[in-house]
Amino acid sequence: MHVVVTGAAGMIGRKLTARLVKDGGLNGKPIDKFTLTDVVAADKPAGFAGKVDIVTGDLAAPGAAEKLIAEKPEVIFHLAGVVSGEAEIDFDKGYHVNLDGTRALLEAIRHSENYHPKFIFTSSIAVYGAPFPHAIPDDFHLTPLTSYGTQKAISELLLADYNRRGFLDGVGIRLPTICVRPGKPNKAASGFFSGIIREPLAGQEAILPVADTVRHTHASPRSAVGFLIHAASLTREQLGPRINLAMPGVCCTVAEQIESLTRIAGPKVAARIKRQPDELVMRIVAGWSERIDAKRAAELGFKAEKDFDEIVKAHIEDELGGKIA
Amino acid sequence: MHVVVTGAAGMIGRKLTARLVKDGGLNGKPIDKFTLTDVVAADKPAGFAGKVDIVTGDLAAPGAAEKLIAEKPEVIFHLAGVVSGEAEIDFDKGYHVNLDGTRALLEAIRHSENYHPKFIFTSSIAVYGAPFPHAIPDDFHLTPLTSYGTQKAISELLLADYNRRGFLDGVGIRLPTICVRPGKPNKAASGFFSGIIREPLAGQEAILPVADTVRHTHASPRSAVGFLIHAASLTREQLGPRINLAMPGVCCTVAEQIESLTRIAGPKVAARIKRQPDELVMRIVAGWSERIDAKRAAELGFKAEKDFDEIVKAHIEDELGGKIA
Repeated sequence: MHVVVTGAAGMIGRKLTARLVKDGGLNGKPIDKFTLTDVVAADKPAGFAGKVDIVTGDLAAPGAAEKLIAEKPEVIFHLAGVVSGEAEIDFDKGYHVNLDGTRALLEAIRHSENYHPKFIFTSSIAVYGAPFPHAIPDDFHLTPLTSYGTQKAISELLLADYNRRGFLDGVGIRLPTICVRPGKPNKAASGFFSGIIREPLAGQEAILPVADTVRHTHASPRSAVGFLIHAASLTREQLGPRINLAMPGVCCTVAEQIESLTRIAGPKVAARIKRQPDELVMRIVAGWSERIDAKRAAELGFKAEKDFDEIVKAHIEDELGGKIA
Repeated sequence: MHVVVTGAAGMIGRKLTARLVKDGGLNGKPIDKFTLTDVVAADKPAGFAGKVDIVTGDLAAPGAAEKLIAEKPEVIFHLAGVVSGEAEIDFDKGYHVNLDGTRALLEAIRHSENYHPKFIFTSSIAVYGAPFPHAIPDDFHLTPLTSYGTQKAISELLLADYNRRGFLDGVGIRLPTICVRPGKPNKAASGFFSGIIREPLAGQEAILPVADTVRHTHASPRSAVGFLIHAASLTREQLGPRINLAMPGVCCTVAEQIESLTRIAGPKVAARIKRQPDELVMRIVAGWSERIDAKRAAELGFKAEKDFDEIVKAHIEDELGGKIA
């Protein structure tokens, strides 16, 4: 089986590739080739004996998408995208990458004869926009309040139409906030959700810019990869016409996040969180969804962690080799 | 005031232009110029003393949208589009006209300096897809089951983002089925909703391909024009961030349509309806929404007919000069 991963150099792309290599296959079939594409060169996955093509470039550039699928890969994980903040600052770049890049890939598939790949697309809860009901049901409308969310929602609609017309077998998964995101702190407004766990566990101070009462839905990077692999296993019959699905996650308050950290790593570690309210971050976060009632995803077998303790433990296992600083 | 109408040669475009000419202005300001554009030349509106530019061509062609807005028209009614059946048969043409054409127009506006028009877009209830709740609420998700509906839903998302970013003052209105559509019978699956009223009133036989119990939501061409003009009057403050609105209509069964016709034109006229069940039409219609709970539109002052009798009377007044054959 030949698997393409776009956005392969990103955090989820790297973890997905590593997991597929570890599993040795997908949907019970061995993987003999990866094509890993991103704007920067993805690393060659460790421990993989098959063929690997590393492709760099812009998917929306003329001919790029056609070239990517020329060998008719059976499965395409389309993760590539400009992130929320960048898409808001650079309007042209956001639409170019997140909309035109996706459409170019879909069009290349449509124009390829006798080709009908499995296409897994990572969407985002940014497709939703306030005001929200208590919990967002599966049939809640998409009224994104960012250009990024708009581009994701449009890509979902395109994917559903290309799927309906039979050009591919598509599935779109709306990822919740990924927590604990490994690596260095970034400037994303949502960064603190990961920061207040990651930094204290690494022996460093973390800033909490919002109130303890802020509620949000999280899934670990490990779960995100699990969602992608499970999505690839679903058939047209299982999915029906509504192929874009909100993913499950752990819904909890910041206070509950900190309680988990304290339970697992002790009060000394949790004391490394410094409260420093930030009006701007508070205002941004107030516009985000709190609770997503991902009923269809649960029925289709998607699984996230059961509680925030599991998310903290997954981070310690996957990123810290089981050790707390 | 300079007003642009795209799709100006179509039924709604012609009626809108005629109404604006009759009103003499829009939002209390006199209209001194129309630009009427379509793929075929629109007629010069009768009785208009101001300037009229008739433009033919493809909005998505390079430079066409820029040229259309070069004089910075204050109001743009964007009605142009390939209809549902055609967009389903000709995938490329549907996306080219309904998506690329709309996007080209939005992009031309964004790139024009110090320009911030009022932009009224006609969307459609085709943005919804079965299965449906008893009545479709304003926050129901968009899961179109046609390429046409997909293109309309994507255009709505683009419009909302361009509106949010401040490039224009946008409003999208989802028209229900327009009934009674004047002119000759067409092959649209929805054609019979108009046909069973129009043909008998004109002394001709009409075919009813579905059961009397079929329920649907209708608004007259007169109401559709009224929606467009009312939409142009709404401010950003009134609309808020959710600028795409389902329009109200008369929800009734085919039996109730026929009862109205009988009440107004007598049983002899209604007897011109011949029942001739058509499996294909029945199946298509079964996938359509029955009832739309257009609560926000009602709160914002959009008005349709109160009952189907009014729709029949509007047709007799507007199309038949008050006479029944």
